[in-house]
Amino acid sequence: MTQEQFKSLIRNVPDFPKKGIQFKDITTALKNAECLRWIRDKVTEMYRDKGITQVVGLESRGFIIGPAVAMELGAGFVLARKPGKLPADVISASYNKEYGTDTIQLHSDALNENDIVLIHDDLLATGGSIEGAIRLVRKAGVKKIYVNFLIELSELNGRKNIDSDIEVTSLVQL
Amino acid sequence: MTQEQFKSLIRNVPDFPKKGIQFKDITTALKNAECLRWIRDKVTEMYRDKGITQVVGLESRGFIIGPAVAMELGAGFVLARKPGKLPADVISASYNKEYGTDTIQLHSDALNENDIVLIHDDLLATGGSIEGAIRLVRKAGVKKIYVNFLIELSELNGRKNIDSDIEVTSLVQL
Repeated sequence: MTQEQFKSLIRNVPDFPKKGIQFKDITTALKNAECLRWIRDKVTEMYRDKGITQVVGLESRGFIIGPAVAMELGAGFVLARKPGKLPADVISASYNKEYGTDTIQLHSDALNENDIVLIHDDLLATGGSIEGAIRLVRKAGVKKIYVNFLIELSELNGRKNIDSDIEVTSLVQL
Repeated sequence: MTQEQFKSLIRNVPDFPKKGIQFKDITTALKNAECLRWIRDKVTEMYRDKGITQVVGLESRGFIIGPAVAMELGAGFVLARKPGKLPADVISASYNKEYGTDTIQLHSDALNENDIVLIHDDLLATGGSIEGAIRLVRKAGVKKIYVNFLIELSELNGRKNIDSDIEVTSLVQL
């Protein structure tokens, strides 16, 4: 499996979720057994020597690869979820979307000051949700933050919303 | 890690999502690196010799362990999602919940007649959603279906909603 083969397995769905958007569907890559493992192994490789203690996955496509990477790194997995989903005490951050705002939450006791965190999501588009997620993980008071995406839509320049002290990687750029 | 240690890492949250329900919170187990790997390895062990070609995970806590097990088994991963989430052509099944009905979907091209499928979710409670998921995977026309949960709430007897020709496992019973 190569990056080009991974790209070729991503399905482009026009006008989803609304007219004018070219949705990048990774389900066609995930159902390919070889590609599924390749994705995990490529992400793991990039963080092998970083001392990651917790992988934070963003609801809900960040839950698919994040835990598998955490297992390979010997880290735990923490869920960042939409309001109303996490059952115990939470901390929250709101962030801007194209229209209006949205909120993301972590359990208050999910992370601590010794954690080195890899925040993972499937897609970097305009960067709204990752900006909120980073602010939220900072609020939890961790030692260091890394950020990883499977796909980065380069022309939307989502990296402008990510603080410059944070190292960002993506498996492929489209 | 033992089953008893896993059980001790599951947090009981009273009155979530509503009064009278004792919510079984697995986030406290998932953030434990050793437990996270143990969960994957125990589930994998049970399906090593079954020829599983696709693991189907139910939105959204079935996305956490399902893909990691799929990777270990050399299978692909397929997402079963709520309506409006999957971008391409879908097949659907509706099922009964405590109040009203809900719907679950798969991409029409996600599975085929040669697939041996492991349907995975975190929790078996009354069994409404797994009944719908099994009916949906049957509709896709696969060769054989297995079902796995991390936690089974035995007293709710959710197995009564699962066809008797299907082998069901759970990591722990509470």
